[in-house]
Amino acid sequence: TQTYKLAVVAGDGIGPEVIAEGLKCLAAATEGTDIAFETTEFDLGAQRWHATGDTLTDEDLAAIKGHDVILLGAIGDPSVPSGVLERGVLLPLRFALDQYVNLRPSRLYPGEVSPLRDVDEVDFVVVREGTEGPYVGNGGALRVDTPHEIATEVSVNTRHGVERVVRYAFEVASKRDRKQLTLVHKHNVLVHAGHLWRRTVEAVAPEFPDVTWDYLHIDAATIVMTTNPQRFDVIVTDNLFGDILTDQAAAISGGIGLAASGNVNPDRTAPSMFEPVHGSAPDIAGQQKADPSATVLSVGLLLDFLGYPELAARVESAVAADAAAKGDAQRSTSEVGDALAARIRG
Amino acid sequence: TQTYKLAVVAGDGIGPEVIAEGLKCLAAATEGTDIAFETTEFDLGAQRWHATGDTLTDEDLAAIKGHDVILLGAIGDPSVPSGVLERGVLLPLRFALDQYVNLRPSRLYPGEVSPLRDVDEVDFVVVREGTEGPYVGNGGALRVDTPHEIATEVSVNTRHGVERVVRYAFEVASKRDRKQLTLVHKHNVLVHAGHLWRRTVEAVAPEFPDVTWDYLHIDAATIVMTTNPQRFDVIVTDNLFGDILTDQAAAISGGIGLAASGNVNPDRTAPSMFEPVHGSAPDIAGQQKADPSATVLSVGLLLDFLGYPELAARVESAVAADAAAKGDAQRSTSEVGDALAARIRG
Ligand SMILES: CC(C)[C@H](C(=O)O)[C@@H](O)C(=O)O
Ligand SMILES: CC(C)[C@H](C(=O)O)[C@@H](O)C(=O)O
Repeated sequence: TQTYKLAVVAGDGIGPEVIAEGLKCLAAATEGTDIAFETTEFDLGAQRWHATGDTLTDEDLAAIKGHDVILLGAIGDPSVPSGVLERGVLLPLRFALDQYVNLRPSRLYPGEVSPLRDVDEVDFVVVREGTEGPYVGNGGALRVDTPHEIATEVSVNTRHGVERVVRYAFEVASKRDRKQLTLVHKHNVLVHAGHLWRRTVEAVAPEFPDVTWDYLHIDAATIVMTTNPQRFDVIVTDNLFGDILTDQAAAISGGIGLAASGNVNPDRTAPSMFEPVHGSAPDIAGQQKADPSATVLSVGLLLDFLGYPELAARVESAVAADAAAKGDAQRSTSEVGDALAARIRG
Repeated sequence: TQTYKLAVVAGDGIGPEVIAEGLKCLAAATEGTDIAFETTEFDLGAQRWHATGDTLTDEDLAAIKGHDVILLGAIGDPSVPSGVLERGVLLPLRFALDQYVNLRPSRLYPGEVSPLRDVDEVDFVVVREGTEGPYVGNGGALRVDTPHEIATEVSVNTRHGVERVVRYAFEVASKRDRKQLTLVHKHNVLVHAGHLWRRTVEAVAPEFPDVTWDYLHIDAATIVMTTNPQRFDVIVTDNLFGDILTDQAAAISGGIGLAASGNVNPDRTAPSMFEPVHGSAPDIAGQQKADPSATVLSVGLLLDFLGYPELAARVESAVAADAAAKGDAQRSTSEVGDALAARIRG
């Protein structure tokens, strides 16, 4: 038996509900195999912060590092000042575990209708950088709450950080049918960071002669995402542009309820983390209204990462088949999870 | 006769073609009135840079400052390294002339079909900050083109700069039917800048008790822009988020061919500048293929700014009527301009 240590961070809002279904489907996918998961739950998020004032402690981090993979629900609650949990739990995990690839596939499953009139096919992957850019937490404020306040945010980009994610994106592209990579940035304004990205893509491209690449400014990319998303195969972009573009990508395909993501450390020097793109949705929390499909798809990405592409495909097919069959009936979170688990079992 | 000094920057690519139609429609709108324009052409852009190495000189700037308003076509050409003209001409104009309000209305005119399946009405205004944020040109690079390269971009935000654009946005909202203002930022990650924006909106809001306001993260805003753009009335946001969101806004309404903008200095300490949102489109330059409508709508914004709302409305109605009537026939740039000028004359 191959046993993996799985850290589970259910988190806030709908997190625990969708995680329950994710684990149900993980069990279904590995049933009858020699793969086992030993799970440890980590209490991170709003409740813990209210009770103890802690976000992610050194002890938490050390304990999480002892695991092979992480499954995360959602972090965030309106009762906690904005930024505290994001910069205190979620981003520290991504950064400390060096999850430099934030992998976000977008597909329009049969049965799903895009809000875009002329679009009946969407199938691309965004490779978002995960450990640099304007997310580094470098910046500050002076004379806060006076007429002379000044606040800065610094985007930090390194050749090391950009090159490794660009190479990963080329690898992803080289394994796909169309082998097309699009770099998205804003190098006509953010010249230093933008030209670093551009030069790095130019430098890595010769290693992948079968991949063609092109470039779009982020503003133009939102237009193409609206008028011609079929143009995209693999997109590589920085942390902030990737955040923006993947929410738009989710909206034009099946919606945020179907958007999965992997925060991947490809060098496996620390555990990778899989999570739905959606947030904690406190307005519907605890009501069994959340769609667990994005979490289940994230479980698929987790299985793929561990080296089980056939199990991953089974999970993705189950979600696709459910999307095609589901109709308009209202189903509870656990009903959807049950339906998906049944399909995964086959 | 009231004579205004108009600086005309036709610029690159399709710039001269669309500017010709813009001026044609400006003449049509003011025909038979006592309003006159004295125009000076400024040769700025790719051609000049190739010939002389100059972008925007101190002399150019001083001469432009002697004008009341500016009409700009488009700046940029692939023959010039990315960033040179943007950071050398366009952004220096916006910054030096303190055009802190970048006003970008979005409307779906009758006859135009949104690429969004369920959307048949779009009518909102984005008030984009124009002189701060990641556009300030503050940043740099170390060890360029080595494995140890590091590149930074600094977003600079001041209470002064944020407060004036926020107050302007509230004023715009207070004059509209729905009186609804949405702040877009990313204050859960960009905590210093984001909280400055949030606190400033909170502080200014009581001056406008009839305006309601809410908040969206930029990533969520791209979702709402796809699923429910009717929700928006006035959006206020920073320079970079505004750049991204207004291109998406153009895409979901009539397309970038109909997106107008004003770079406004509301204090009138320097001339304001009106320009289509689209770029120089070098691929179709000189072929009379460009749609001048966005430039003509920008002329409408210019007339409104100078205090002629009835002339501005006439220009906008002409574009709306043309959009409704135009059908699928191919028309040259000047044919569209002629049709618009005829409608403006009435
Ligand atoms: C919650 C927030 C910090 C996060 C991000 O900005 O990365 C989220 O939007 C995401 O995309 O995973
Ligand atoms: C050309 C570029 C510098 C400019 C910007 O980023 O502001 C353009 O995209 C715009 O929106 O006017």
